[in-house]
Amino acid sequence: MAVNLSAPDPASLYPVGGIKLGVAQAGVRKANRKDLVLVTIAEGARVAGVFTRNRFCAAPVRVAQEHLASGKSTRALLINTGVANAGTGEDGVRRARATCSEAARLLGCRTEQVLPFSTGVIMEPLPLERVVAGLPACVADLRENRWGEAAAAIMTTDTVPKAASICVRVADAMVTMTGMAKGAGMIRPNMATMLGFVALDAAVGQELLQDLVAESAGASFNRITVDGDTSTNDAFVVIATGTASRSVIDSTRDPGYAALRDGLQELSQRLAQAIIRDAEGATKFITVRVEQGGDRSECERVGYAIAHSPLVKTAFFASDPNLGRILAAIGYAGIVDLDVGKVDLYLDDVLVARQGARAAGYREEDGMRVMKQAEILIRVRLGRGTHETTLWTCDLSHDYVSINADYRT
Amino acid sequence: MAVNLSAPDPASLYPVGGIKLGVAQAGVRKANRKDLVLVTIAEGARVAGVFTRNRFCAAPVRVAQEHLASGKSTRALLINTGVANAGTGEDGVRRARATCSEAARLLGCRTEQVLPFSTGVIMEPLPLERVVAGLPACVADLRENRWGEAAAAIMTTDTVPKAASICVRVADAMVTMTGMAKGAGMIRPNMATMLGFVALDAAVGQELLQDLVAESAGASFNRITVDGDTSTNDAFVVIATGTASRSVIDSTRDPGYAALRDGLQELSQRLAQAIIRDAEGATKFITVRVEQGGDRSECERVGYAIAHSPLVKTAFFASDPNLGRILAAIGYAGIVDLDVGKVDLYLDDVLVARQGARAAGYREEDGMRVMKQAEILIRVRLGRGTHETTLWTCDLSHDYVSINADYRT
Repeated sequence: MAVNLSAPDPASLYPVGGIKLGVAQAGVRKANRKDLVLVTIAEGARVAGVFTRNRFCAAPVRVAQEHLASGKSTRALLINTGVANAGTGEDGVRRARATCSEAARLLGCRTEQVLPFSTGVIMEPLPLERVVAGLPACVADLRENRWGEAAAAIMTTDTVPKAASICVRVADAMVTMTGMAKGAGMIRPNMATMLGFVALDAAVGQELLQDLVAESAGASFNRITVDGDTSTNDAFVVIATGTASRSVIDSTRDPGYAALRDGLQELSQRLAQAIIRDAEGATKFITVRVEQGGDRSECERVGYAIAHSPLVKTAFFASDPNLGRILAAIGYAGIVDLDVGKVDLYLDDVLVARQGARAAGYREEDGMRVMKQAEILIRVRLGRGTHETTLWTCDLSHDYVSINADYRT
Repeated sequence: MAVNLSAPDPASLYPVGGIKLGVAQAGVRKANRKDLVLVTIAEGARVAGVFTRNRFCAAPVRVAQEHLASGKSTRALLINTGVANAGTGEDGVRRARATCSEAARLLGCRTEQVLPFSTGVIMEPLPLERVVAGLPACVADLRENRWGEAAAAIMTTDTVPKAASICVRVADAMVTMTGMAKGAGMIRPNMATMLGFVALDAAVGQELLQDLVAESAGASFNRITVDGDTSTNDAFVVIATGTASRSVIDSTRDPGYAALRDGLQELSQRLAQAIIRDAEGATKFITVRVEQGGDRSECERVGYAIAHSPLVKTAFFASDPNLGRILAAIGYAGIVDLDVGKVDLYLDDVLVARQGARAAGYREEDGMRVMKQAEILIRVRLGRGTHETTLWTCDLSHDYVSINADYRT
């Protein structure tokens, strides 16, 4: 089902020094599947994250933020799938803390040094005893080369595990970056329903790492949308273990900074795009590029109006070049002084609309040819300025409805 | 398919003095269906309207607004289905004007006295010759009691014609109000994809009529949403012919004003709700009421976040009480200082969430019982103030995808 995406070859996932992962079958919600992941982090690593802005943020999000803010170095991540522990009030917070305490006890660190993450159904209690009972198996399973298994264990409606590695030269050292993520519906900025975790073995100062996480998320996970829903549990965490290099990068002026930033951004985009490729019911991977905007914000409003429109998305599902729906979405994106007579619309290289109306040379068979592809670029030129933005989305299919109508059964 | 909605009994549609309607088969887009409607308006009537705010507004919307602004009394409405004449640039405007000219010639009035309306596919040229060729049949068909046929002739993906009448005592006179509307997708405020036309036989001053149209739309057509898409062609027009009463209502202090306003609002709500009941693929009619907001705007943001959420809508389609999705939607509605610990959620009379978490007495079978109904009330209490709002929406089904994927074929 996923669009040009298959499970990562285990050999393509490189271990990152200082990181071990263990997975277990805790029976959080369903039997016979791995659903609990423990990631241990060597002493001296830096950890930074960005989290959902949903006001109904889940209990583990609150606890993870508290633990990060405690100033104690993070030594482990504990991730479960099945139950999101969201909409669960103070009882949910107690349960999230209790899972951290138990992991800390087993690992010999403090509760605040463990960050909890959950994904799954909202408004159901986290089965604390099952998570606790599953932890020893996670610990026993801890290994450097378990990224693929961990990526599979955090899936919900994902059909394909999402993980990738890249190597980049940062100043004098070769730095390895490996990450994993999960989608797959309820995806939209700030953040997607997604958990994303990246580890790299460069040494990075804490403040710079926080900036890098935010910047990378802004260029990747915050530029994807499936259905416009912002989840309660989203988190993107980056761990810099420092095992590959002793010299700490702590300023944007440091020689390795640009390579580090670009590498992290590339990996984040790959993971974010994988979420879209495996979005619920997706049959097309659609890039929306909005150019010639008066500012960045109006480019984004136009881009999201197109990417969220159920009418546009169903037309792409059907490969039906009913492209006036894109013009309609541009028109209601909220640019009050938009001169539609300056708007051009392309599908890949096909000029569909010019100066706000159907282009003279446009033929429907050309539009249909592009729409039948699995990967499509929608390009809008607003004729208002020099700003631009790019985001990624998918079509809306029967399967999206089926998956979300039957998610819990 | 429509939820508790059937075609209106012809006997329930009362003629309005001064109004005649004629329908014809012009072959605008499809053969063998009535697709052209002419409404003639007696001299002395007042006409006012509100129109889409989509910047890609259709050519007929531009022309209708120009003609209304000309100050010449409106003598006819000309409505076609099949082609929306939107995204068609200046050529589209010329064609819309040409249809008015031809109608004016046949009726013996001026071009500016005819308002054009179109609905259908975007970005295709209006077949001017066919509309012109169909006009004489419309004129020949003009009758006072053709509301039901006219309502059927303006349908696109509607499955049921939408028309209704009410009688209200306005001061000393009995006033008849009859209206028709069409949906059915691309529905959201400012405005729905909808055309709505109401005629009444009270005499109303021009300025007050304009205020009444805006107020009625705000309480009806602007409170419904199917998919969040604002169309290019929406219009709601009210005609006051004055044949039932000589005394003109031109102030909110006039004795008949309140009855007139309430009657128009009731009829508008009935037509607007009919659009939701017959929304593309709808199987449930859902009322979203948001109470205890700090202001009206935040109530609306929460209401629309719920009503637009594909995850919420698919859960209702499946009668799956996955109600945490509603909490998630409340959480991302953009109230930055929302205290989720004060939020309560009801489904009809079932308390689902209390103080931001699953209510102690809530049982899933109670939630499921309500979700299986064809009509459902979602009630949110924000615990922030005394403002509230109500809007109407529907679920998201397989048929929505099918209808919109195959609309043009």
